[in-house]
Formats: sequence, C-alpha cells, structure tokens
Amino acid sequence: MELLELKAAVVAGNKELPKQNLVKYSWGNVGAIDREKGVIVIKPVGMPYDELTVENVSVVDLDGKVLEGPFAPSVDLPIDMELFKGFPQINAIVHTHSTYATMWAQAGMDIPCFGTTHADYFYRSIPCTRQLTDDEINGDFERLTGQVILERFRGLDPVATPGVLVAGHGVFTWGKDVYDAVHKSVVLEEIAKMAFGTRLLFPEAQPVPAALMDRHYFRKHGVNAYFAHDDYGHGMVDHD
Amino acid sequence: MELLELKAAVVAGNKELPKQNLVKYSWGNVGAIDREKGVIVIKPVGMPYDELTVENVSVVDLDGKVLEGPFAPSVDLPIDMELFKGFPQINAIVHTHSTYATMWAQAGMDIPCFGTTHADYFYRSIPCTRQLTDDEINGDFERLTGQVILERFRGLDPVATPGVLVAGHGVFTWGKDVYDAVHKSVVLEEIAKMAFGTRLLFPEAQPVPAALMDRHYFRKHGVNAYFAHDDYGHGMVDHD
Amino acid sequence: MELLELKAAVVAGNKELPKQNLVKYSWGNVGAIDREKGVIVIKPVGMPYDELTVENVSVVDLDGKVLEGPFAPSVDLPIDMELFKGFPQINAIVHTHSTYATMWAQAGMDIPCFGTTHADYFYRSIPCTRQLTDDEINGDFERLTGQVILERFRGLDPVATPGVLVAGHGVFTWGKDVYDAVHKSVVLEEIAKMAFGTRLLFPEAQPVPAALMDRHYFRKHGVNAYFAHDDYGHGMVDHD
Amino acid sequence: MELLELKAAVVAGNKELPKQNLVKYSWGNVGAIDREKGVIVIKPVGMPYDELTVENVSVVDLDGKVLEGPFAPSVDLPIDMELFKGFPQINAIVHTHSTYATMWAQAGMDIPCFGTTHADYFYRSIPCTRQLTDDEINGDFERLTGQVILERFRGLDPVATPGVLVAGHGVFTWGKDVYDAVHKSVVLEEIAKMAFGTRLLFPEAQPVPAALMDRHYFRKHGVNAYFAHDDYGHGMVDHD
Repeated sequence: MELLELKAAVVAGNKELPKQNLVKYSWGNVGAIDREKGVIVIKPVGMPYDELTVENVSVVDLDGKVLEGPFAPSVDLPIDMELFKGFPQINAIVHTHSTYATMWAQAGMDIPCFGTTHADYFYRSIPCTRQLTDDEINGDFERLTGQVILERFRGLDPVATPGVLVAGHGVFTWGKDVYDAVHKSVVLEEIAKMAFGTRLLFPEAQPVPAALMDRHYFRKHGVNAYFAHDDYGHGMVDHD
Repeated sequence: MELLELKAAVVAGNKELPKQNLVKYSWGNVGAIDREKGVIVIKPVGMPYDELTVENVSVVDLDGKVLEGPFAPSVDLPIDMELFKGFPQINAIVHTHSTYATMWAQAGMDIPCFGTTHADYFYRSIPCTRQLTDDEINGDFERLTGQVILERFRGLDPVATPGVLVAGHGVFTWGKDVYDAVHKSVVLEEIAKMAFGTRLLFPEAQPVPAALMDRHYFRKHGVNAYFAHDDYGHGMVDHD
Repeated sequence: MELLELKAAVVAGNKELPKQNLVKYSWGNVGAIDREKGVIVIKPVGMPYDELTVENVSVVDLDGKVLEGPFAPSVDLPIDMELFKGFPQINAIVHTHSTYATMWAQAGMDIPCFGTTHADYFYRSIPCTRQLTDDEINGDFERLTGQVILERFRGLDPVATPGVLVAGHGVFTWGKDVYDAVHKSVVLEEIAKMAFGTRLLFPEAQPVPAALMDRHYFRKHGVNAYFAHDDYGHGMVDHD
Repeated sequence: MELLELKAAVVAGNKELPKQNLVKYSWGNVGAIDREKGVIVIKPVGMPYDELTVENVSVVDLDGKVLEGPFAPSVDLPIDMELFKGFPQINAIVHTHSTYATMWAQAGMDIPCFGTTHADYFYRSIPCTRQLTDDEINGDFERLTGQVILERFRGLDPVATPGVLVAGHGVFTWGKDVYDAVHKSVVLEEIAKMAFGTRLLFPEAQPVPAALMDRHYFRKHGVNAYFAHDDYGHGMVDHD
C-alpha cells in the first residue's frame, strides 16, 4: 500500500467519527500503521475533523518522531504506539469518548456479553482496565495507559476482543485496517447502549451461555466461518 | 402478485429499516413469502441496504434452495422458513436488533402491556422466548431458533401478537405483507422504549386492565372494529 | 376568524407534531374550536400528516356531526368535545403519545414540578388521571376518557395547568389557540424527560419550593407578569 | 474589539445553542461584556434565535440600562451582571436548560468528576448551588440567583471550573469569550449525560483519583500545558 493510500484511509476514518456521532469537537482520533515502512499515520492534536487532509495528517516513525505534517500528532500517539507494539496482528486504532461506552468506562465495569449483537463482534466481555496508580498518572502517562491496556489483555486475544474500556477515560477499538477499526467503534457504542438498558431493566441479567458466544463468534470468524462477507469486499462482519 | 412486485416490496422494506433507525450496518432483514408460487424473497447475507436491488435480492424455494440472485440469502432464512410454516396467516417477517427491543430481549423479559400504544397493536404482552439449550445452539441453530419462537407461541395468536423477542438476541415482527411487518417493527421499538422508561420510573408498574387491552385491540381489529383505515388504503392501524 | 384560517391553523398544528418528534405514524392529533360559529376542526382518523390539507380536514358541529371533509374525524373527537365543554377558556387541544410523557402516564404518576422549566409553563404538578373502570372502558369509552380528565381537574385551573396525562394512555395539552397548544405539547415532553432523569438520579427528589413555582409562573402569567412576549406577537411564553 | 464585532459574536453564539440541541424555543441566552467600554451585549427576552441580528441584540451599560436595541434584554441579565462583577476573569456567559445538565440541577446534585472528559474541562466537581430561600425568591430574584452562584464559588476558581448548576433551574457556563463559553456549554451537557449513565450503572461510582484530575487539567491549562491548541487559533481545549 502506498503511504498516500494509508493517509487517505486515516483521514476518511477520522471524518467518519463525527458522522457516526462518536465524538464531539475533536474528541477522538484514528491512527494506522504501515508495518513494512515502519510508519504510523495519525490525526494531529486538537484538529477539527473537517480541516483534516492528506497534507496535514501526521506521519511519525516507530519511535514517535514526526516525519511529515505541519502539526504535532495526537497526544494519544504513545498509547497507539504501545498497542501496535503489543498487538502485532492489528494495523489501525480508534480512540473515542463515545457516550455509552464512556459510561461503562467511568463505572469501571466490563461490558458483559448480554446478546448476539455483542457475540458477533467481541468474544466474551469487553474488558475494562484498572485505574492507573498515582505514580503512573504522574509518570509517562499516555505510554503507561497503553501498558495498562496490554496488562488487561494478558490471556486475551486482541483479535477476538477488538476493543477495551480504559477506566475513568474512554474507549479504544482496533482492527486489521482503518475501516475495520472504525466499524468496531460504532458497534461497541451500540453494544454499550444495549447493555446499559439491559442492566437497568434487570440488574441480575446474566451473559448469554458460553455455547452461544462461541456459536455466534465462530460462525463469523476462523476457519469454519459460514458468515463471512467476502462477497462484498468490505471486510465487514455483519449480522444478516 | 407478480414476483417482481414482491421483490420490489422486499427491497423497499429492507431499505426502510435504516431510515427508521432500526438497524446499524446490515443488522436486520426483511423476507416475504408468495404462498401460491412457493417462493420466499429475502435480503442476501451482509448486504448493505443501499446496494440492494430487485436484481440481487435472493429468491429461494420453500426448502431454502436458491432460485434467483447472485448472493447467499440471509443466515436468518431458516428462522423465517420455520415461521412461515408455523404461522400460515403471515406473509412477511422483519428481523432487527433495534436498541430498546433488544434491551428487553437481552434481559429475557416479556414487554408488559403498559398502555394503549401497545394495546393498539399487540394483544397482551410481547413475549420473549426462552434461551436455547447448548444442544440447540450447537445443532441446527437458526432453524431451532425458529422452533423456539413457535414453542413460545403455543396458545398465542400470531396475528393478535405480531412480534416476539428472542432471548439474548433481538426481535422479529411479522404481518400480512411487507409494509405491515415493517410497521410493526417501528411500533414495537417505540413500545419497548416507553415500557423501559415506565419500568424505571415505577418498577411495580402493572399492565393496563384486561378490559382496556380488549377495547383498544378490538376497536382496531376483528369484525367490530371501528378504527380501521381502509379509507386510506395503507393497511395501517394507527391511533388517530 | 374565518373558518379557512382555523382549518389552516389546525393543518399546520398537526404537521408540527412529527416535526417536533412527538408522534410516529399518525399517533396524535390537533383539534380546535370556533366557539362563535359552533364548530370544531380536527384531523381525520388515521390520516398521515403529509396528506392533511384544508380540503380534507374534518369540520364537525358541537354534537360531533360531520359538516365538512370526506373522512371520519379522529376517534378522539369525543374527548376533545368534553374538554371544550368543560374548559370554556381553551380553544385548541393536542393529543399525542410522546415518548417521555407516555412513560409517566403508563406509570400512572403525576409529574412533580422539579424545576423552573416546568414552573414557567405548568403551575404545580402535571396531573395524571385515574385509570378508567371496566364499566367505563366498555361503555362510551372516548367520551368517558374526557370525563375522567375533567374529574381530575376539579379544583385545578386548566389555564394554569394546560395539560394532563391519561393513565395507561398518553398526553393532552391545550391552549388559547393551536400554536399555544402545540407549544405546550413540545414543552411537556421535554419536562417529562427532565423529570424522568431527575427521578432516576435521585429518587427522593422534591418539587421546588412553592414560592419558586409562584414566582416563575406569575412572572409570565397574570396582571403582574414582566415576562410576556407581546413584543414578538407569537403569544409564546419562553424563558429568556 | 469593536462593539459590532462583539454583537456579531453574541448573535452567533446564541444561534449556536439550538444547533447544538441545548435549547428548545428561546430557552437560553448568551451575553458578553466589553470591560473597557463598560457594556454588556445580550439576547433580548424571548426572541427566537433565527430572528436575532446585530441590529436588534440588546446593549446595556453596567447598571443594566439599555443603550441600544429595540427590545428588553433577557430577564437573566441581572444574573449575568452579578457574575461579570464577581468573576473579573470572564467575558461571556451562556445560560441554558439543556436536558441532562438540568436533570442534575433538578436533583440538586454536583456532577462528580467521573472521567477525563470532565477533567479536561472542569477541575473537580461541577458545583450545584443551594436552593434560594423564600425571601430571596420573593425579593430581587434574578440578581439574588447571581449572588447564590457567587456564594457557591467561594473558594473555587471560576476559570478552572467554568460552569455551575443552579438548583431546580438550569445551567450557566462562562469563558474568556463567546466561543469559549458556548463550547463549555456543549461539553458540560455531554459530561452530564455520561455522568448520569455512570451513576445509574453503578450508584457507588467514585470520582477519578485527584492525581488524574490534576494531570488532565494541567496538561491543558496553565504554564506547563502541553495540550494547548494555539496552532489552530480556536482557543479550544480538546481531547486529541
């Protein structure tokens, strides 16, 4: 893939965030990695989405050094750098403070798998990290936020569970490319809203049976999937 | 009715789902049966609504064999086939994961008839199925989901109660034609939202008196209806 | 006022309901009275708002006999007739099943005056009627619904409290003209939403002090009002 | 700054309120001060936003005497006058009854700092005033509302906490200019919604650690800020 293509995808992915009502002002960003070239493309800090172009998007190397772009990259860059390092299977990351996902993050709670909407995209609970310690907060804050996400994923597969809530903060999703990562962001917000209502209606609500989680997840993922959409070339995994 | 007409109705019905905010991405589908011709028309699996046309919609026979259309039919086809077999009065089915209906489905709860909005369309509670057993989940999953819906309707009239919640999954509605089935889907989602709020405001809220359910339902349905809208030819049943 | 003017106002008022998200399909209606001419103008039953015109709107006399219009008037006409008779100060009535107001109606609860938004428009609580008895439901249902509203307003001033929740049903608002009655409908729905959230946040929340209700209400209404908007000729009573 | 520029900013700020869904009808206003000229520019009372222009906006002196504009200024002018006097660092004030902020105000509760969205804009809790006494309500009501806000801010820094809930009423935000004050209003409403959901999901939810509040606030404010957006000249403080 040419770098220009990746820039265009990152620009388009960022502009999708306000369209999908996942952000207010510039409260979110999309970043993507080209692992061959060793570069990360990410939204500049604080830039309004409608001003973002392939000319002003930030390009950095794997140490975070700015290679292209007139502005500073997102302050969340060190988080993305940790995740790209820790999760070699992923190539794009979305960060937002989308409303319902953030409610769960602020409550410090994992989102239980209450239904097949969830099971189709996220295997088991959507995990929430621990709160950072004061030392971490006062230290290399953004990088350590990335570390705390990786810590939460010990024993979890980031491909099967392509998102995380950061306690008292917001939400990150990821995927094999920008489209995939943004798609997961939209889905996670809707799942968070449904789970919110499920919990309020019935505080004792339980996750669906493990067999159902497996069935829904594996009918769409893995070698026995019978619900892949390659026909349409969108790389999407949808319900119907 | 010509098959082309039925295809056009199914295409239009599917496209209505995102307009009515009942779906994200391709999370829902509309299918309809021509009982004389012995065919079912249904959305192809995973297809975005705006790409759906009378040329690419799926046509299958009553055993699910594809007769027309370049793509695989929705994975929910076996559910529709069970319902069309079990409910001979209905000719169209809508499946969605609409937000508030799904909250109730995930909570595994019937929606009580808290008011006349509900009573005008659904006689008594909107039922929720039981969760499938592990054996059912690991077996002929989609077909057995249809069976579990039919099981829940033993003793119920699918014309008087034109919809069901599937525990831990989503919602199905049906009707005499595509318009009718989609209309019920919109209504059920709004009823689910109102009932959600009623429950939160007053957890001990009780259904309206049986006399009121009867009055509202039968002023719009059956031989003594005085609230049919044949004047407008929409086949709609509305409030005012 | 010419009858045509009143028809135009009723048509415009009805079309405002979907624009303000107070109705789905045809779930609501606006009616108005010309007390001099002895006629009521009201939406025909079940008619979609975008098909409503001054040519097809229903005109009836004070006994409900149709004078003009090709269709049957709204089934809610007998409710409006009771209210126009019982509340001689009002000239227009709006009925909807707007979402949050209906949650309160389904819970069978008055909406307490939790703040000045409420106090600016509705003096004290917005009352909810009792549920009708089985005999009333099986009798002259719509007319008796009107009677039950009047019963609830014994000792209340319908000008100071221009709306009511009907238990297990929906909401009625009224005013000196169509604009005023529709305006109250929009406001009541927003008040209902705010009060819903207030209640959930803090179940023991209390109404504002009586002195504040008086202050806000009387700074906008009555001989000492200093917050009337006659400058703009809208007959609106607004906050700022 | 020319007075015309300030008028244009106030007009634009007011028109932003309905666009951001912070108001219904004319339920809110923006006012701004030119401290050198000794004038305040504010929306006239009850005026619909789309009729507001630089010709009809109200200009008053610091005693509230009308200098320009054909209509009476907002009845909230005395509140703004108190705040401009008490908070010499601020130059613009926004008042709304935005839905979620008003839920908290009606519950009489401070909004706890549940996350970094909050911490980025408001240092510690967003305070709620006490209810006014009957004597205050029956006295110089609007001016005393301003006094009660100032009373609540004893020991607080209005620059670090640029907004307040008024118990049983609504919300005020402020800033160094109109853009800044409106921006805070949008943000506060979203924070109020997220905090509402957090509270419902987990009633025992606690504020984030003080170290995190400090870190987020001071990375955007003060001499050590590394997250200022001067690059874009918007004076905005955003997340990414």
